[in-house]
Amino acid sequence: MSRPLLERTLSRITAPDPAPARVAATRLDEKTKPRGSLGRIEALAVKLAGIFGSCDFDTRPRAVVIMAADHGVTAQAVSAYPQQVTAQMVLNFAAGGAAINVLARQMQAETVIVDMGVVGDPCWPSSVYRRAIAPGTADFTVGPAMTREHVEAAIVAGIDIARELAAGGMRVLATGDMGIGNSTAAAALTTVFTRRVPEEVTGRGTGIGDDAFARKLAAIHLALAIHAVDRLRPLDVLACLGGFEIAGLTGLILGAALERLPIVLDGFIAGAAALAAVALAPDSTHFMIAGHRSTEPGHDFALRELGLEPLLDLSLRLGEGTGAVLALPLLDAASRILSEMSTFQSAGVSGAV
Amino acid sequence: MSRPLLERTLSRITAPDPAPARVAATRLDEKTKPRGSLGRIEALAVKLAGIFGSCDFDTRPRAVVIMAADHGVTAQAVSAYPQQVTAQMVLNFAAGGAAINVLARQMQAETVIVDMGVVGDPCWPSSVYRRAIAPGTADFTVGPAMTREHVEAAIVAGIDIARELAAGGMRVLATGDMGIGNSTAAAALTTVFTRRVPEEVTGRGTGIGDDAFARKLAAIHLALAIHAVDRLRPLDVLACLGGFEIAGLTGLILGAALERLPIVLDGFIAGAAALAAVALAPDSTHFMIAGHRSTEPGHDFALRELGLEPLLDLSLRLGEGTGAVLALPLLDAASRILSEMSTFQSAGVSGAV
Repeated sequence: MSRPLLERTLSRITAPDPAPARVAATRLDEKTKPRGSLGRIEALAVKLAGIFGSCDFDTRPRAVVIMAADHGVTAQAVSAYPQQVTAQMVLNFAAGGAAINVLARQMQAETVIVDMGVVGDPCWPSSVYRRAIAPGTADFTVGPAMTREHVEAAIVAGIDIARELAAGGMRVLATGDMGIGNSTAAAALTTVFTRRVPEEVTGRGTGIGDDAFARKLAAIHLALAIHAVDRLRPLDVLACLGGFEIAGLTGLILGAALERLPIVLDGFIAGAAALAAVALAPDSTHFMIAGHRSTEPGHDFALRELGLEPLLDLSLRLGEGTGAVLALPLLDAASRILSEMSTFQSAGVSGAV
Repeated sequence: MSRPLLERTLSRITAPDPAPARVAATRLDEKTKPRGSLGRIEALAVKLAGIFGSCDFDTRPRAVVIMAADHGVTAQAVSAYPQQVTAQMVLNFAAGGAAINVLARQMQAETVIVDMGVVGDPCWPSSVYRRAIAPGTADFTVGPAMTREHVEAAIVAGIDIARELAAGGMRVLATGDMGIGNSTAAAALTTVFTRRVPEEVTGRGTGIGDDAFARKLAAIHLALAIHAVDRLRPLDVLACLGGFEIAGLTGLILGAALERLPIVLDGFIAGAAALAAVALAPDSTHFMIAGHRSTEPGHDFALRELGLEPLLDLSLRLGEGTGAVLALPLLDAASRILSEMSTFQSAGVSGAV
């Protein structure tokens, strides 16, 4: 996809028609409950009805797309885990033993595992989508993490996967990620897109000690100094500071918005990808649902910038899509409340006096 | 059950053995994820393993027990809905059309509907448990809501239902409630048990206007003045200010603790019942799981007094058990994470360096 083609694609992302959401709000007020008493479930039902253009919508089948890639910045010793854990965890995903597999089975979400650029020469099982752009990004404390061509290719890969899943009948998509070092990249991106300083948005990731945390902050400061990116040029920001899986998730989010499907965001990595997506196509935000609020301090800034209130707040910081998938039953509940609940009239219940 | 028998029953409620919870915490640290990265899901898994005395436990079958009763204080015009809505909603529950039915079907929880004291001469379908103590409580602005005999009978009915459900194989119980006027009773109880003033804990219930809210506050003030209850005499507090369904839920909670089953609490009404349960048997708190935080201002005070952090915070204020049932997938997730996830060793994933 050439740049003009990507730009034309992005221009097709528009806000949903407001009429179906209004119909849903009216329908909810006729149900046997005090008005608004189901709180955020009602707000979610209204948002989903808007996205789907109907009060009667399915939230299945659905898929969590787990994009994996490696990060050159791990050379700065910013993570508690060695780089090979990215590939090892992809194999764990393929074998069904990781947290996201357990939760996706529970919530009946398909797991789509995508190699966006894992280091090494991994011998993936056939279930792993092979969309590797390159074996890991470059160290962004030295130069740009990716070329412009690579970042665009990663975004397009994400858009393509969303479209493929939509064509296959998926009704809801969720974001997942794996990449040792990716909370460093996400912190750098979040700093730029939320106009904060690294100290405000940088957290302990997988649980690093004080020394690694100091290196992580220093790496982000150095990267911001040498790249001097402009948040109004989001492709440059992503290229300099992002990662293949982050750019891939930006594409997945944009692809979901193009297909007019809800995209449930996981935590901090997804938040950084979503900030880039909104910078590229502002109306993509209408299709985003924040699954949870991570303990990573930058995630809350990202959610506020995105204007999203998370559904869950369970002190999660695992990634993989776990916080997105845990929120799926709330989408199911919103759908069922709209379609299955009786009305005051049908149930013969008196209204408020 | 005589009073000495009730007291002997309560004395059998003891804290779980701490060993299984420690085993669960160790097992979680061996799973392929950074330690503690599943946050409150891990804490929930540890708590449930403690309650069940094992890392491998089922969270199904389960039931939400919806206790319904009427309240004499509705004579003070404290609610937005007429009293007959209690009976109408019980019929709606029996017909499967209420919010709690929709959500219980989704979460595969059985709905157990209990008439604890609904006004009128309702012709219930056979699915409704008939445990009515009396047709509604007395107006507590005039005299005690219940006699001591009645409150004890309601508690015993709740204990019996918990035991019956446990004997039938239920592994998790959840509280539900219906009773026009019951947020007034719950506010009075919460005021006493949390040592607050009515202005702090009283909310708008089903959504009353300013005039009804003023009447609600005045009724609570009057009741507190004429009864002068002592929170260290919880049966007196419940008798003077409670309701049949609230006392029944207190019994249900105590019965779950006796049977060593987790009891998932819904919102403000359940919180008031749980405060009474803890006053009667302090170790019952170990078996409680707070499903959500209601928008009723008193609920947060109740949760803090109980030492419980709610799983969900979705601005719900419906009752019926909706907030408890919406949290059930998180219990399922905790169970599955403990039993299904691979370990670093089994998956061949490198640990933290």
